[in-house]
Amino acid sequence: MLKIPKKIPLVVLIQVLLVLGLGGQDRPRLILSAAGVENIRGAEGAAPLFAEVLRTTRAEVDAEIAQGIFVPVPRDMAGGYSHERHKKNFFILQKAGNLYQITGAKKYAVYIRELFLRYAAEYPKWGPHPTQRSYATGKIFWQCLNDANWLVYASQAYDCVYDFLTPGERALLEKDLFRPLADFISLDNPQFFNRIHNHSTWGNAAVGMMGLAMHDTELVQRALYGLPNDSIDPNTLDNDGGFIQIEGQRQAGFLAQLDYSFSPDGYFTEGPYYLRYAMTPFLLFAKALANNRPDLEIYAYRDSILQKAVWALLHQTDAQGQFFPINDAQKGMSWKAREVVAAVDIAYSDFGRDPRLLSIAAEQGRVLLDDSGFAVARALAQGLAKKFRPPSIAYRDGAEGQKGGVAIVRAAGTSDGELCLVMKYSAHGMGHGHFDKLSYSLYDEVGEVVQDYGAARWVNIDQKGGGRYLPENQSFAKQSIAHNTLVVNEASHYEGQVKLGEAHHPERYFLELAGEAGQLVSAKERHAYPGTELHRSLVVLEAPSFPNPLLIDVFRVRSERENQYDLPLWFTGHLLSSDVDYVSSTQRLAPLGTAHGYQHLWREATASPGGQSAQMSWLSHGKFFTLTTATQAQDEWILARGGANDPHFNLRHDPVFIQRRRARSTTFVSVVESHGRYDPVSEIPQHPFSGLHSVTLLHDTETHTVVQIQTLAGEYWTLALANADAAPESPHRVEVDGEVLHWRGPYLLQKTTS
Amino acid sequence: MLKIPKKIPLVVLIQVLLVLGLGGQDRPRLILSAAGVENIRGAEGAAPLFAEVLRTTRAEVDAEIAQGIFVPVPRDMAGGYSHERHKKNFFILQKAGNLYQITGAKKYAVYIRELFLRYAAEYPKWGPHPTQRSYATGKIFWQCLNDANWLVYASQAYDCVYDFLTPGERALLEKDLFRPLADFISLDNPQFFNRIHNHSTWGNAAVGMMGLAMHDTELVQRALYGLPNDSIDPNTLDNDGGFIQIEGQRQAGFLAQLDYSFSPDGYFTEGPYYLRYAMTPFLLFAKALANNRPDLEIYAYRDSILQKAVWALLHQTDAQGQFFPINDAQKGMSWKAREVVAAVDIAYSDFGRDPRLLSIAAEQGRVLLDDSGFAVARALAQGLAKKFRPPSIAYRDGAEGQKGGVAIVRAAGTSDGELCLVMKYSAHGMGHGHFDKLSYSLYDEVGEVVQDYGAARWVNIDQKGGGRYLPENQSFAKQSIAHNTLVVNEASHYEGQVKLGEAHHPERYFLELAGEAGQLVSAKERHAYPGTELHRSLVVLEAPSFPNPLLIDVFRVRSERENQYDLPLWFTGHLLSSDVDYVSSTQRLAPLGTAHGYQHLWREATASPGGQSAQMSWLSHGKFFTLTTATQAQDEWILARGGANDPHFNLRHDPVFIQRRRARSTTFVSVVESHGRYDPVSEIPQHPFSGLHSVTLLHDTETHTVVQIQTLAGEYWTLALANADAAPESPHRVEVDGEVLHWRGPYLLQKTTS
Repeated sequence: MLKIPKKIPLVVLIQVLLVLGLGGQDRPRLILSAAGVENIRGAEGAAPLFAEVLRTTRAEVDAEIAQGIFVPVPRDMAGGYSHERHKKNFFILQKAGNLYQITGAKKYAVYIRELFLRYAAEYPKWGPHPTQRSYATGKIFWQCLNDANWLVYASQAYDCVYDFLTPGERALLEKDLFRPLADFISLDNPQFFNRIHNHSTWGNAAVGMMGLAMHDTELVQRALYGLPNDSIDPNTLDNDGGFIQIEGQRQAGFLAQLDYSFSPDGYFTEGPYYLRYAMTPFLLFAKALANNRPDLEIYAYRDSILQKAVWALLHQTDAQGQFFPINDAQKGMSWKAREVVAAVDIAYSDFGRDPRLLSIAAEQGRVLLDDSGFAVARALAQGLAKKFRPPSIAYRDGAEGQKGGVAIVRAAGTSDGELCLVMKYSAHGMGHGHFDKLSYSLYDEVGEVVQDYGAARWVNIDQKGGGRYLPENQSFAKQSIAHNTLVVNEASHYEGQVKLGEAHHPERYFLELAGEAGQLVSAKERHAYPGTELHRSLVVLEAPSFPNPLLIDVFRVRSERENQYDLPLWFTGHLLSSDVDYVSSTQRLAPLGTAHGYQHLWREATASPGGQSAQMSWLSHGKFFTLTTATQAQDEWILARGGANDPHFNLRHDPVFIQRRRARSTTFVSVVESHGRYDPVSEIPQHPFSGLHSVTLLHDTETHTVVQIQTLAGEYWTLALANADAAPESPHRVEVDGEVLHWRGPYLLQKTTS
Repeated sequence: MLKIPKKIPLVVLIQVLLVLGLGGQDRPRLILSAAGVENIRGAEGAAPLFAEVLRTTRAEVDAEIAQGIFVPVPRDMAGGYSHERHKKNFFILQKAGNLYQITGAKKYAVYIRELFLRYAAEYPKWGPHPTQRSYATGKIFWQCLNDANWLVYASQAYDCVYDFLTPGERALLEKDLFRPLADFISLDNPQFFNRIHNHSTWGNAAVGMMGLAMHDTELVQRALYGLPNDSIDPNTLDNDGGFIQIEGQRQAGFLAQLDYSFSPDGYFTEGPYYLRYAMTPFLLFAKALANNRPDLEIYAYRDSILQKAVWALLHQTDAQGQFFPINDAQKGMSWKAREVVAAVDIAYSDFGRDPRLLSIAAEQGRVLLDDSGFAVARALAQGLAKKFRPPSIAYRDGAEGQKGGVAIVRAAGTSDGELCLVMKYSAHGMGHGHFDKLSYSLYDEVGEVVQDYGAARWVNIDQKGGGRYLPENQSFAKQSIAHNTLVVNEASHYEGQVKLGEAHHPERYFLELAGEAGQLVSAKERHAYPGTELHRSLVVLEAPSFPNPLLIDVFRVRSERENQYDLPLWFTGHLLSSDVDYVSSTQRLAPLGTAHGYQHLWREATASPGGQSAQMSWLSHGKFFTLTTATQAQDEWILARGGANDPHFNLRHDPVFIQRRRARSTTFVSVVESHGRYDPVSEIPQHPFSGLHSVTLLHDTETHTVVQIQTLAGEYWTLALANADAAPESPHRVEVDGEVLHWRGPYLLQKTTS
């Protein structure tokens, strides 16, 4: 392995390499390796899934080659012709490169050469993309981000045909296309390149991978360490309302991304939807560095942060493999995405061959057309896969793990099912962050039970705002009321201001993932509303009495002033019934409020539950659910639905149940129960009714809260929480109705006789 | 086979049989046969699916036996404890009977004996069910229908343990339980037993099957031929608003059901949801008759009407095997239902072993635990299955096939997909009929594209009106506006009156299922609105130019007076965009109207498309669709949504697009186009935009209508219809814009150069 010394001028270096003939040796070497190719050729029979991918990729690329070469003048937004054509070009380039190496068929190299030469002829004529809609407008695409995508894939194709091209062709491509493109997205767009963000990760990888492919150490240096002086105005915003610069954080480049994008556990502050997107440049550039700059020991960097990030990504999925839509995220994205295929294959081949990854690869049903994909496919054929069963886990947020986090609690119950609770008490998450401190979402084995709205966006669908974030993303999807968390006085957390949100974060109060009767996560938020403290404890209770785990939600709020508190529950499915009489707006609908997302909700019904335990039940994807909640005398219940003030039908018309209370300090206590099934084929409801009699708040002070759950079978469950001292060994004593509870640590959860 | 002479007094007959020892011979013989049991025993290995059913049924019944015997005092509606318990009892009785015969294990016979004896001890104490909510209140259940279900299953169990019981036990059961129950649902409830209806089919089968099991010829006679004199008031209604008696129709009993329930093609006038339900008693009683009364040649009866009915049932399903929700029907019911498992297995074993039935059995994944299920499972194991590919087909309605019908048009296009059009021009369909003359619904390979609402009912879900039809079924789901058909002056067809609806029916005008370019169905309705003629022609156009078949809809209406016409399109999914500017009700919603279902629609937006071709597109389950329609200058477009005047949240909040026009005679022309896909995992839209430029009504007179479709690729398609003469050989000549069209027969469909 040749070590390239830093600081040698580029031209000299290229000349040296050409003289040494190194440009023509040991290719491919960027992602594919010469040895890997040797290993694959003729051995596809031992890896049927790989052989299948090889076959379909050949068919796809052959069809493209037959159609000819199209390099349209850039014009369209995502979804439009020029955008989709250039996007297809880079995917096909990369595939054709790998096919050339693996099959040896020259037509693939010829195609790549022709397409590259056409780009090299056209690119110099193009100015900035005419749309001018991005904070960092690209040339091939409407944003630099997509230009960077192009370069990441093109660099791999270039590496694969490097030896096939003449030195003259290479010089031409590098001079007229690759180097100018790399300079454009870095030197010319520091606001894109020089920041800690998934966009910049793509930018860094693009410049670095092409640098490695070209043997251009200057580009590699730039990619690794960023631009030394970027002169970015600290108040610059990106298209999502995020700040380009993070206060007190002045490093940039790929290594800085590794340092600052992840918590020490591998959690990515934007959430899994964007982590998935960022994983491609992280892993591809890392693999290219591992292949070409072993001195960096990039896989071991920061205590193997990339390996942790891959697992963090896989853990943030429901039972269907769909990512939790934390922050801006389009629902439906899953570990079947191409980026996750790449992550799983590279993690398997390069991070210790964990056999659980193979079971995911089997569900993905495809592998990368390279060494790592071949390794996975061969291992699958050897029957080495082990089932991936994600455990309950809590991730910290923040580069040093000091900014709250996300807890994922999974419980199976006695049936075949799963209940998965996601509680979010993380940092804001930059421009894609939502104002949903202490929110939760709930999943079962078939999908969403209590939903997070996700983003108001149809990614790449031109008819909906060009496929970009829609206005309703800001006005609704990011607002607190669009989430399952407390909203005070109809205003979002942190006034809906990114700057305020970025400045603070909740604190985890305590965590118990191995409790005998249940798993608990508790967190506090002191800054979302000045002078008001929010404290939520969520408990997943498993016991033989319940066929499915119960979710207990204790949401305390402390304030000196009287406020209006709204606690929304975005249940999925169809309302069945309630034991509270509600008055429906049958003849007229009006919005629930005027701002902070309330303007997007139609008020459909209201009720006065009175001071007692009350229930509401619903049916969702063939399952029965009931909310049982301890109400207070003046409480109001609201049933609302999305879709108001939505002139272009951008929002889903989903139902929401809201508990409203005027109070100073108060505590909301609710239980969500999954208790039965219904199949329209058998038409026989199984356990359609709640098994609970009531939920009662027995005791609530600054120091302790005690909740009781009574079942119809006559069982009593007591949950006691220490509100001000989470130390594991602290003793606690509370007297409730003449009975004394003693326990140690932040909670007590037990079945009692009465 | 012993022929039992009619007219011998019962007591004498029983004594004769006992003397002859025939009560103890050749059992089982009702559904199971002694020879069949012999055939099965020990041969389960040759039929793995049967062995699996045997295993799971044993486990299920063993678990029930372990729990003990429960015969609660009848009290609850469907969904409640006593209802569900008695329902479970009859299912388990039948299973235990078959298990006793197939395994020889006595515990099953003991269980049946105990349970029957308990019923015999309790039944005489029970009066009519306390609910009194049915037009025919039962004793065990809230309606006689469920009591009949009980007897159909119990008769099979009784047959299986007949020899196991002592003569004294048999005499007791027959005297205290079976005979009184059979008399109750027939003699005591003629309005239930003596009519042409799915309820009565159950009643007939119940009485007849128990009659066969008991060797009680009087019961068998009653079941076959009905009660001779029922004194039913001709104006009596059932719970669904249907008339008990059909005018001019005085026969009843099982043979009359076979004569009058089906058209000569096997179409069942209530629709497939109820045909599925009725198939069980039809086939079980028929099989019992085939086994015990071969003299009747019941399978050959009426030109093998039962065999035709089974195929009609299977044809009325979408690509997922779900039944078209024609008339009252809960969506999601499919050929996986137990009734269809029974139909497929009996049809396979008794109606000529059609191997296409085996492919459905394979998808069902279960078989009957009897001779026929064994035959299916063994044939599956032998690899005899052939794929069932339902063709386009048209069914006639009415006992003599003279009352309109239903056309099912299927087309595959050049992609993997399917487009399936269901056009309904049938008779009213009795109490479960909807007022939707000339309506259509549209399906693709994954589900609904243009939906029929189905019924407003959650079958058996107690929280929703006790699981019965909800008030909104009458006020909305049955009304014309809830369907894809023309509504005149905001009033439903036939004023929403069953009596008027039953008196008339549309006429098929012409049908072409083998056209070169497309399949066409055309029908006229003259009575839904007095003085107004409705004439709809639907065309499924397949051509290489279109990746998916197009649906062309030409809806002509003739009237002397000016009317308001509304043509709803119940598209499924989410509105994407329109080339017509619409004004949304962003701050306030009000109902679209006051009656005939309009009171249940919120008006969300309106538009004035102007006199041109206009488009609206939507995304549904990952696919893009566009409606292109020829508008007129004063047309109004309305976007609305279900849910108004729905105080108990009984309705789905589905969107609907309505074209509104004030005119005398006029013609609506629209095209529904499926043109692309989107997957949230790849996030790449494929063909997101319509391929059509415009749809134009070129010519429209009393005799001829000419429509032109122009594609963006510059193709022109011409559809010409003869409106007053459907004779296949009649010559037609129309001059349009100086160009002359010549053709023979009711239509011309061709691609033209301009």
